[in-house]
Amino acid sequence: MTPLAYALQNRPEFAAQLKDWLTIPSISSLPAYADDVKRAAEWLAKHMRHLGLEHVEVLPTAGHPVVYGDWLHAPGAPTVLVYGHYDVQPVKPEEWTSPAFQPTVRENKLYARGASDDKGQTFLHLKAVEAYLKTSGRVPVNVKFLVEGEEEVGSRNLASLLKKETALLKADTVLISDTPWVGPGIPTIGVGLRGGTSVEVKINGPSHDLHSGLHGGAVDNPIHVAARIIARLHDAKGRVTVPGFYDKVRPLTRPERAQLKRIPVTDEQILAETGAPRLWGEAGYSVMERMGSRPTLDVLKITGGGDAAAITSTARIKIGLRLVPDQHPDDIYPRLHDYILSLAPDTVRVTVNRLSPGGPGVIIDPNAPGLKAAQTAMRQTFGAKPVYARSGGGIPVVLMFQRILQLPSLLMGFGLPDDGLHGPNEKFDLSQFYGGIDTSIRFLKTFGNERVQHAHG
Amino acid sequence: MTPLAYALQNRPEFAAQLKDWLTIPSISSLPAYADDVKRAAEWLAKHMRHLGLEHVEVLPTAGHPVVYGDWLHAPGAPTVLVYGHYDVQPVKPEEWTSPAFQPTVRENKLYARGASDDKGQTFLHLKAVEAYLKTSGRVPVNVKFLVEGEEEVGSRNLASLLKKETALLKADTVLISDTPWVGPGIPTIGVGLRGGTSVEVKINGPSHDLHSGLHGGAVDNPIHVAARIIARLHDAKGRVTVPGFYDKVRPLTRPERAQLKRIPVTDEQILAETGAPRLWGEAGYSVMERMGSRPTLDVLKITGGGDAAAITSTARIKIGLRLVPDQHPDDIYPRLHDYILSLAPDTVRVTVNRLSPGGPGVIIDPNAPGLKAAQTAMRQTFGAKPVYARSGGGIPVVLMFQRILQLPSLLMGFGLPDDGLHGPNEKFDLSQFYGGIDTSIRFLKTFGNERVQHAHG
Repeated sequence: MTPLAYALQNRPEFAAQLKDWLTIPSISSLPAYADDVKRAAEWLAKHMRHLGLEHVEVLPTAGHPVVYGDWLHAPGAPTVLVYGHYDVQPVKPEEWTSPAFQPTVRENKLYARGASDDKGQTFLHLKAVEAYLKTSGRVPVNVKFLVEGEEEVGSRNLASLLKKETALLKADTVLISDTPWVGPGIPTIGVGLRGGTSVEVKINGPSHDLHSGLHGGAVDNPIHVAARIIARLHDAKGRVTVPGFYDKVRPLTRPERAQLKRIPVTDEQILAETGAPRLWGEAGYSVMERMGSRPTLDVLKITGGGDAAAITSTARIKIGLRLVPDQHPDDIYPRLHDYILSLAPDTVRVTVNRLSPGGPGVIIDPNAPGLKAAQTAMRQTFGAKPVYARSGGGIPVVLMFQRILQLPSLLMGFGLPDDGLHGPNEKFDLSQFYGGIDTSIRFLKTFGNERVQHAHG
Repeated sequence: MTPLAYALQNRPEFAAQLKDWLTIPSISSLPAYADDVKRAAEWLAKHMRHLGLEHVEVLPTAGHPVVYGDWLHAPGAPTVLVYGHYDVQPVKPEEWTSPAFQPTVRENKLYARGASDDKGQTFLHLKAVEAYLKTSGRVPVNVKFLVEGEEEVGSRNLASLLKKETALLKADTVLISDTPWVGPGIPTIGVGLRGGTSVEVKINGPSHDLHSGLHGGAVDNPIHVAARIIARLHDAKGRVTVPGFYDKVRPLTRPERAQLKRIPVTDEQILAETGAPRLWGEAGYSVMERMGSRPTLDVLKITGGGDAAAITSTARIKIGLRLVPDQHPDDIYPRLHDYILSLAPDTVRVTVNRLSPGGPGVIIDPNAPGLKAAQTAMRQTFGAKPVYARSGGGIPVVLMFQRILQLPSLLMGFGLPDDGLHGPNEKFDLSQFYGGIDTSIRFLKTFGNERVQHAHG
């Protein structure tokens, strides 16, 4: 039997296995879920052993563990390091049609937190390797899996692990499926990612909540101050007003703009994806340009006050920055910090804290090893030539692979723009999942025939 | 034994009884507490019967019940209708030093939700009546108690009850203890109350939360829109910018301003009460004037976003208006509604809803029956002549008593400005509680000797 035939035959079984993994709420950002995160790692390690990977290990870090597994019996062939993450974002249960951790298939889409980001997209490569091992007993390349549990919290302990495990992680390229296509039917290879960091602002006014009648008129209201600060973070043209914010932004080149224009995704499609009344953003740029190639600042959360008729003592906001080359959070964060403090009146106490180190954006070399193989595999599977596009999201580890291991990354994702990542009703189209497995099978074969400059072995 | 001696002897017992009542979380605004609200009403009815009131009844309404009890055996003497409320505001448990519904005494202060607002201040009149009934067996006046369970939700079902029970509620004056003193050691009689209403604003952007990286730059952010709206509700001088907001505000008279200036409370004291870095409010008015005699608009609650790195689909704000004579919420609300909609961009959908009917502010006739008796009783008990002050809070029922029953109200409160009403660690100084009982005993006697124009019998 061919690997593709094996994969076709086992589709229902593969989906059932993925569903089982998706029942584990491996939310990395909430300490209450630490045991579940661990459980998801152990599930994965067991599954790797079961399908025939060797040297499977759950590597501890200062935070959540990393799962490693390899198969290295293709002497002379290149080595692919598949990176993925098994941790997921938190959920607002009340907004889900079916519970986030009870995977449910509706209209050939698998709904669950992590279905697309990134358990499903990680799992499809495991199934491709399994298809080889269970048929011919051999994979066309040497393959290593590195699946972490802290991508959604900025991969904060991965750099030190990469430094420590340099020998273990030697490879020719990193293969990552954690980016979406620009639209359905348009296979997409990522050529850039945004960086960023997140920032918390606390506004403290009165020392305790005050009766809004008895004391209304006596003190400034922390919610009002928060609003006045937020209102001044953008100008009327949608530009971020933090001084120097755009200084280091690498302008889009004419070919890049032309290439983005050629992508057959209309504003109407993007509008439909978002469900907003109207698209909006920085003046002078198309929505495609704004989503991937321009930096953004968004308030992700605001809280203040409660159910009592009281002026609150405290308001809190969380800001998410999405940065593009060559902005660096180490440069942008102090500017934002100082700007916010410059907006703060003396009627309250304002504090600004960086919540994560974050990192800068990256642009990927379009001549990286494996890129042609990926293109071919996607075209053969989906019947359309892939487009190149920068993704608006961030994958901090791409930069770490570059810097620590001198490894290029190949962003061959299978998500769709309406997958609902980080929001309610996250889903992964089963056609994308099965197509992803087939693409991975084809990629491994084509790449196995490539002659790669072996930087590391 | 005199009633005062009885009250002195029974102080520990009175405090223990109040603590028992305070353990019941009678939060009227949260449906989950409906049974507790009912339980608090039944506790009170039982207690009224126990101390010797007659015709005790739990009167149903469309919402939470009203507790009525009377003693009417003082022919020829005036009739006092004591109004109070047994419902309380919600709590944020994490901000309380001791649990809100486990009454705790520290430094002679009784800490519990409702200790001051208004179970404690209602209870002290019951204890005064008990002191008469358990000593001489007679009260110097006819006394009726009307204690409701919906003051904290705008007394929304009380008007229809007053209309229905006109005969039952005939009296010469209403006595209310639900206002604070302007400062410790300064007995205060209320001569005005603010009115108001509350308003909810919903801002809907995308139909679901969007990944802040993938879609950041595509759509407007509902939290940003909320902030821009809030930032435009006040000008730089702290004035509310809603067109026509101040049109009907009755200006403070020169004597009123002079009288407020004479109150021996400093800005430093008010600053200390609030714990804010600096006082703040409408330019051109003292803080005393701003807190009671000028209208205010405060955002009481804002929510938007969550723990995920996502642009939220929805932001919500709750606005509290505190209005003064002759503003009316029926006039101000539509102005606010239209103004907010005029600030809303077409990138989102904004809806504005009035949460409660509310009512206008009131000014109390300083020659109302009982006012002299109250003055005398306060001076005799606390050794200082009471001041007259408008309170910044609102008691909707005062206007209902005026309009439906043609009854004046007498605002003889015993709270202190640092009681923490509606906030964490609400307390009632036991010296104010005991002093309040003594004051009520003296008031009932002095008022019993007054000759009142019997409007109603």
